[in-house]
Amino acid sequence: MDYMQESLKKHYEWKGKLRVSSAVRIDDKESLSLAYTPGVAQPCLAIKDDPNLSYALTRRWNTVAVITDGSAILGLGNIGPEAGMPVMEGKCALFSEFAGIDAIPIVLSTQNTDEIVDTVFNISKSFGGINLEDISAPRCFEVERKLKEICDVPVFHDDQHGTAVVLVAALKNALKVVKKDISSARIVINGAGSAGCAIANFLLANGAKDLVVCDRLGIIDESEKFNKAQNELASKTNPRGVKGALADATIGADVFIGVSVKGALSKAMVQTMNKDAIVFAMANPTPEIMPNEAYEAGARIVATGRSDFDNQINNVLAFPGIFRGALDARAKDINEAMKIAATDALASLVGDDLSDKYILPKPFDKRVVPAVAEAVKRAAIESGVSKL
Amino acid sequence: MDYMQESLKKHYEWKGKLRVSSAVRIDDKESLSLAYTPGVAQPCLAIKDDPNLSYALTRRWNTVAVITDGSAILGLGNIGPEAGMPVMEGKCALFSEFAGIDAIPIVLSTQNTDEIVDTVFNISKSFGGINLEDISAPRCFEVERKLKEICDVPVFHDDQHGTAVVLVAALKNALKVVKKDISSARIVINGAGSAGCAIANFLLANGAKDLVVCDRLGIIDESEKFNKAQNELASKTNPRGVKGALADATIGADVFIGVSVKGALSKAMVQTMNKDAIVFAMANPTPEIMPNEAYEAGARIVATGRSDFDNQINNVLAFPGIFRGALDARAKDINEAMKIAATDALASLVGDDLSDKYILPKPFDKRVVPAVAEAVKRAAIESGVSKL
Repeated sequence: MDYMQESLKKHYEWKGKLRVSSAVRIDDKESLSLAYTPGVAQPCLAIKDDPNLSYALTRRWNTVAVITDGSAILGLGNIGPEAGMPVMEGKCALFSEFAGIDAIPIVLSTQNTDEIVDTVFNISKSFGGINLEDISAPRCFEVERKLKEICDVPVFHDDQHGTAVVLVAALKNALKVVKKDISSARIVINGAGSAGCAIANFLLANGAKDLVVCDRLGIIDESEKFNKAQNELASKTNPRGVKGALADATIGADVFIGVSVKGALSKAMVQTMNKDAIVFAMANPTPEIMPNEAYEAGARIVATGRSDFDNQINNVLAFPGIFRGALDARAKDINEAMKIAATDALASLVGDDLSDKYILPKPFDKRVVPAVAEAVKRAAIESGVSKL
Repeated sequence: MDYMQESLKKHYEWKGKLRVSSAVRIDDKESLSLAYTPGVAQPCLAIKDDPNLSYALTRRWNTVAVITDGSAILGLGNIGPEAGMPVMEGKCALFSEFAGIDAIPIVLSTQNTDEIVDTVFNISKSFGGINLEDISAPRCFEVERKLKEICDVPVFHDDQHGTAVVLVAALKNALKVVKKDISSARIVINGAGSAGCAIANFLLANGAKDLVVCDRLGIIDESEKFNKAQNELASKTNPRGVKGALADATIGADVFIGVSVKGALSKAMVQTMNKDAIVFAMANPTPEIMPNEAYEAGARIVATGRSDFDNQINNVLAFPGIFRGALDARAKDINEAMKIAATDALASLVGDDLSDKYILPKPFDKRVVPAVAEAVKRAAIESGVSKL
């Protein structure tokens, strides 16, 4: 099927992928007096006395905003707020379909970091959580950091952390297959944007030690060629001091992780990798290397972002369960402990059937959301960020 | 029934009065590929090429944001954003139940005029219209004026204009009953906040000439005792130069309009009014004068905001149809012509059955929303603000 043209046709038919509707019948004087004036004064006053009651008396407990500035929509780049809306509505539809969450799409008319922060903070008390989406690097790092500081609801940039959670779950299982340890594996990441930086930091939090991160200009370092987030990451990675380009980094590597562009990894590079090489080629829609080429060049395990190959690394495995768990715990943050719990819960759903071609549950596996949500909720409580 | 306690109980049961849900099934690879990646890239690119298509390919065409800063919630005053949410959810539920509009409640963490304007503008491209709600005067005037200037979707402060539309419809019909003309009627307004100022201005737009407006400090004038909006209104009203307090203004008046506080109008004042006096006592929940007292003092027609008396003046008669019409016309503004059209459509629904006790349709009269919406849509097209 030509998904592109068929999708356009469907979008014209759908006229929007979300519906907002009243959950209460209002069709006579009595129902109006209860849901609205004069009765509604009483829940208002109750919340005024105890703002926590906004989680009991309004929909806040189950509501997440999905917010973009339109600067990095899919692989389409900076296409602006209106053009980002079909993706935000789609994401909200997934929150609804996968996790029963009321998700509200918001597109911003500004791409200025401070204005984004002010705007999102100013509307944050309307929601129980905030999912940032498709905001370009490096602005996304500062936007998220500042919002996490000032908001009392969880703020989560899915392109960073959702991707990192699913990818690290896949990697933990892949390493299990090839009997290698994350702490000694040589791991190369290509692409030091929002996803690449988040994956690198999350791998470090999960015990990885030998990470080399590349971007278009080569292996990142602390020079001015790279941005602040990349400099900071460089200071924590590359313990063997490898220099040069991607082709230099992949020599002897156990793992390649691509969050970059079509064709970035050549067969020749894969041939220089270590035995039982793991290749995660996540560029969308066309991966850094096609799976058949990677296998031909000697890779043992290959994963992509695509549904038409084995081992799909898809964010939908993470964000619905992570937010379900965070909301259920009334977490004020989504912290490292919660993300690690999500990763391990996801990885553990693959048991005896673990193999080269099956390192992650499928996106529509009904066990995923409850397992991730439960693990995230427990981690929120144990790490002290639950307000229950 | 004790609506207050019963409403609190219901709000605990409801756990929120709105639901956001997916309008598309996403339960397999194919549906995911159409509603989300990779298919969704195509509607995104179509909107990038023509931002107008956001009205065809997303839910924008039917979506209104209901936004407050929590500064003037019902008659409860400045109770903050979280405590304002039950009212915003209720309003959104009314939009849904009465007009099939997808309405999204937003509460703001700032009460600074410029910050409100920036925040609302920055999220405005997510919606097809913006309903401002329960923002205190005089800030509400500047917030609305600035937003109308910079947003390309209609911005409408319902406490001002919704109230004015319904009240003026009621007044036109009441004047018909007593066979007086709006251009010669002596009209007194008590309360020069958001509703009072808007009613005064809208009466002028509908042909009223002899208006006297009072506030707590007496009849408004151009002195520093009153705010800028009140000064401006004073320059356009009080042609006979009446001085003093409300009791001075009501002498010989044909119409009293109260948007002030419980008990503000005494029987003695009503006794000094002209023959066939019209008294609209809108203070909530307790009117400026109770209907039985007003009748005893000689009033001919009495209306209040309450559903338990005849002649209820309720905003729900206006805002659902006004926004339905504005959205259906893809209006970039809700202008005077559209508000006057709404007023006249509403008034005209009372025909031969017009009487002292029946000057407005009932809130649940099924004719109201279609009639108002059709008139507003037509006025939008004729006045050149439709983008159809």
